[in-house]
Amino acid sequence: MAYYGYFNGTVAPVDQLAVGTTDLGLLRGYGLFDYFLTYNGRPFQWDWYWERFANSASRMHLSLPLSKDETYAVVMDLLERGNGADTAFRFVLTGGYSADSISVERPNLLILAEAIHPVPPVQYEQGIKVILDEYVREMAEVKSTDYKRVILMAEAIRAAKASDLLYQKGGEISELSRSNFFLVKGDRLITPDRHILHGITRRTVMQLAQKELKVDERPVLLSELYDADEAFTTSSTKKVLPITQIGELTVGDGRVGPTSRFLLERFNALTEAW
Amino acid sequence: MAYYGYFNGTVAPVDQLAVGTTDLGLLRGYGLFDYFLTYNGRPFQWDWYWERFANSASRMHLSLPLSKDETYAVVMDLLERGNGADTAFRFVLTGGYSADSISVERPNLLILAEAIHPVPPVQYEQGIKVILDEYVREMAEVKSTDYKRVILMAEAIRAAKASDLLYQKGGEISELSRSNFFLVKGDRLITPDRHILHGITRRTVMQLAQKELKVDERPVLLSELYDADEAFTTSSTKKVLPITQIGELTVGDGRVGPTSRFLLERFNALTEAW
Repeated sequence: MAYYGYFNGTVAPVDQLAVGTTDLGLLRGYGLFDYFLTYNGRPFQWDWYWERFANSASRMHLSLPLSKDETYAVVMDLLERGNGADTAFRFVLTGGYSADSISVERPNLLILAEAIHPVPPVQYEQGIKVILDEYVREMAEVKSTDYKRVILMAEAIRAAKASDLLYQKGGEISELSRSNFFLVKGDRLITPDRHILHGITRRTVMQLAQKELKVDERPVLLSELYDADEAFTTSSTKKVLPITQIGELTVGDGRVGPTSRFLLERFNALTEAW
Repeated sequence: MAYYGYFNGTVAPVDQLAVGTTDLGLLRGYGLFDYFLTYNGRPFQWDWYWERFANSASRMHLSLPLSKDETYAVVMDLLERGNGADTAFRFVLTGGYSADSISVERPNLLILAEAIHPVPPVQYEQGIKVILDEYVREMAEVKSTDYKRVILMAEAIRAAKASDLLYQKGGEISELSRSNFFLVKGDRLITPDRHILHGITRRTVMQLAQKELKVDERPVLLSELYDADEAFTTSSTKKVLPITQIGELTVGDGRVGPTSRFLLERFNALTEAW
């Protein structure tokens, strides 16, 4: 299947799009993005993703070249050109081309349809291992393109036979490298409320959980890992993915727990009916 | 004058080069760079710039696609195509194209000849104003492309009628947004030794100063600004640029001092004879 993309008004197959060499995203890391999936031909939680994307742009003082409705029309056009099959979308907004390599003139907007990379089923059955990393993202609440840390740590992750990093700073847990973090204790769902990107899947899961579980959004300490029953991570790609090992620590009994399973089922039911 | 560039083996006018949309520099901020000028047709301090570039690549676990000699040959070729006039060069090495938007496969190397943007002469005569910013660059010693902060703060800099930021964290001064920082007290030159990018102009200036001045590389506190005689900043573009105002504080008597002048003259003499 060919994936189509949009760049500053031009629509073309993604491999025919390219960005000039004075782009401030490339030269200065001055860019932000967002990423979501479509289900049944419709962008999942579109209003929430758009709101977050617009907020990131505002926080980075970049104007949006397209309105919400114009952007939606581009997304639907790209989806149809890809024969309508469900796909991932990546929005990238950068500081644009800059004559002096530092001043913002007009942002560049890239909208890419991409293949979905689903999590291997075995990870849902067994849960994943993550390793702790003392780090906190700069402007964590803005979805800037700054994801250096996890790429820098790729070898350490591989060496530990882990799948990802769990960030903590001064004993306070924030998030994984590209997804949010939850603990389960009895009928309580606990998730960090600061130094995090406010995930749309996180928000969706909290909403799905609210009838059966008490949801605590608050600072979470490393010490709370020791008596947790379950842990899981959420993102658009990972959905609700159990974490059974955190460094040397086995979470709960080391198996995927009923609350993680229940929330994944709820999430899948929601996306199937989307 | 047309500027030429090199991208992964292709040489072309810079405006004809472009980077594909799956580049990890663009999508994830995973990139590093270096920047230097040529004088009299020769790259200034080539050995030191190459060493720093190779060190940044190593620290970011990226392999260099070209050897030092091969890179030098590319630089000289681009210089000749631009009719030999002195120019700036920017090297950009990114994590390369990535099928899953996160795994490094093969780095992308971009070498761009660029127009030099000299500092307006009035700034050498009057000195510049900078404003303090509580910030420290992540991996400050690596010349990663992460220069978000100064772009984010552009409006604050303009509003203060300043030229740049002076970073401090917990009362300890590190560097300006893209250049190093020096204080002059009597016959002493004082410059921070940590949380900084080790500038090649900084190194050159310390070498030029060593006969006439005592050079202290050590942590520098904000409180030391109050009894400084002079302050200046160094970079390949700024050379030795006096700082006469730091936020509300006037440095020394507010005029460009003799040591800054002396070091600028020395630096200019070195580059003229390069």
